[in-house]
Amino acid sequence: VGTNLKKLAQELNLSIATISRALQDSHEVSSGTKEKVWALAQKLNYEPNPYASSLRRQKSKTIAVIIPEIANNFFTLAINGIDEIAQKKGYHVLIYFTHDNLEKEISIIKHLQNGRVDGILMSISSETDCYDHLVELNNKKVPIVFFDRVCGEIEDVATVTTDDYESAYKATEHLIQSGCKRISYLQISKNLSIGKKRMHGYLNALKDYGMDFNEDLVVYGSQNDNDNYSKIKSILDKENRPDGIFASVESLAIITYYACIDLGLSIPKQVKIISFSNLATAPLLSTSLTTITQPAFEIGKEAAYLLFQKLKRNNAKFNNYQFNNNIELHSTLNIRDSTKASS
Amino acid sequence: VGTNLKKLAQELNLSIATISRALQDSHEVSSGTKEKVWALAQKLNYEPNPYASSLRRQKSKTIAVIIPEIANNFFTLAINGIDEIAQKKGYHVLIYFTHDNLEKEISIIKHLQNGRVDGILMSISSETDCYDHLVELNNKKVPIVFFDRVCGEIEDVATVTTDDYESAYKATEHLIQSGCKRISYLQISKNLSIGKKRMHGYLNALKDYGMDFNEDLVVYGSQNDNDNYSKIKSILDKENRPDGIFASVESLAIITYYACIDLGLSIPKQVKIISFSNLATAPLLSTSLTTITQPAFEIGKEAAYLLFQKLKRNNAKFNNYQFNNNIELHSTLNIRDSTKASS
Repeated sequence: VGTNLKKLAQELNLSIATISRALQDSHEVSSGTKEKVWALAQKLNYEPNPYASSLRRQKSKTIAVIIPEIANNFFTLAINGIDEIAQKKGYHVLIYFTHDNLEKEISIIKHLQNGRVDGILMSISSETDCYDHLVELNNKKVPIVFFDRVCGEIEDVATVTTDDYESAYKATEHLIQSGCKRISYLQISKNLSIGKKRMHGYLNALKDYGMDFNEDLVVYGSQNDNDNYSKIKSILDKENRPDGIFASVESLAIITYYACIDLGLSIPKQVKIISFSNLATAPLLSTSLTTITQPAFEIGKEAAYLLFQKLKRNNAKFNNYQFNNNIELHSTLNIRDSTKASS
Repeated sequence: VGTNLKKLAQELNLSIATISRALQDSHEVSSGTKEKVWALAQKLNYEPNPYASSLRRQKSKTIAVIIPEIANNFFTLAINGIDEIAQKKGYHVLIYFTHDNLEKEISIIKHLQNGRVDGILMSISSETDCYDHLVELNNKKVPIVFFDRVCGEIEDVATVTTDDYESAYKATEHLIQSGCKRISYLQISKNLSIGKKRMHGYLNALKDYGMDFNEDLVVYGSQNDNDNYSKIKSILDKENRPDGIFASVESLAIITYYACIDLGLSIPKQVKIISFSNLATAPLLSTSLTTITQPAFEIGKEAAYLLFQKLKRNNAKFNNYQFNNNIELHSTLNIRDSTKASS
């Protein structure tokens, strides 16, 4: 018997057996008593014996990470952050890719509903525009934390994000202050809440600096790099081409570099570029890339922390106590040569 | 009843029930009959009904991929290749990281032995110098295919690799032909068979061109980037520093770039660099990087193909027929500015 359990029993003047049953949500204990036990347990920060609890409930000791794709430095760093925490807790990490495909995402969620994993960390696919599968998962009380690409449609859900609106505002402002008059915004999807927030930051910066919004300067990419290349090259090949590019995704910035080389456009003289990016080689590029860098590793760590908090409380049947945090970490602007003002 | 099953029954003059039991390795059928059924089934390319077979055996419809780390473009591309095949077959892919740690690798293997997944694709950790856990897994008949970092200690195992020896020989030869006199070799581990093969290619190229081998020019890195930076900076900071660097891992080449910048050494004038690498930005670097590029996506695809072949045969109990291929795909030398001969 752990000392904590004993302490709860003493404080409430109940038997240890009753406390234990109450914590396990047993029908043998009245709901009034359970409420009292849970409230005090939470107040005293009661720690259930994790090993006993794991045996009793046959936990899988496994968490799932659902991400759109792997060839993206943000996600690889975030996974490293998640994995660092999971290792400390003795959990395995399973990674599932949606390939930014809604059908695939739904199939993964269905696959995970029946206790295959203890909890889920998720960044939703860019195609996801209906959320029934996520609502269902949430109703089934599968612990879940969203990170980066969160689902705005479910209430009371834990999220870890970055300051997307402010960062996008700053990025656009930086291009304006570097002398850009026609700023293009490149993003992957119209659906994602982060896409909307970044778009919002871009639009408000334009407005605040008295610049007109031109819909032709917004490019929506896809999962196909060849298509993205064609689209980006096409806007850069026009006479009234943009003189500034703000990419909300790293891969679109790299494609912009290749398009500029192929069109003989000089960076930053003719085209300035800034991108959300966690590219390790950003400072080493022929023209070093100015980036908005998300704290990807920390986002992964925070999301995993939140999930393990949920798991701990679920073990102790604290479901009725809400603790869904929404954590926002700051991104940093790293100014390099790709946005240098012409002298 | 599938026509194939009927055909087998007709050819062998046995009942369909007997054929079915034989294919399921039932003890009710004599081993002589089973051998006959299996032989003909293989000859006629018998395809069991995958859905029925999955139900009967409660397959997980899941394969595991065990890799050392994720922040490596080779592995991200290989995973994309694996995933493409797995998706077509309707399988989920679970990814496990060993972090190049033997203990972690053993714990993952133990975790996977009891039917959690139908098969395993694996690249071993750089720390792995004993293979008991892999031998045990192989003895338990868990279908496994090794890719890239293969286990040379187990016989009769399927592998997909690249021409490591030849590529390393070519890389070293290219540096010599570009005028290098003191060529350093950077690698992660002494244990890995790919490390040994690449080292061998490096040594033989030196020998064939009449150059002495100097042990001080070999750097063994670790999982710690700061340590790797110190080691690489230290050899570049000596008076008799190398004039050529051959990195067997992409991350060590990137660190070399940073070390050269910090020491004020010009690439390729003072130091030429070539690396095994799948870096998307290699052509965009301030000095574009000459690479040995592994067909990472194809390696992943081939490995997954092999595994699904194994799964198919295992379903039909063809275990006694050996089909463990060892596939070798070619890497390509992409010459860029980082190895340009001084004029």
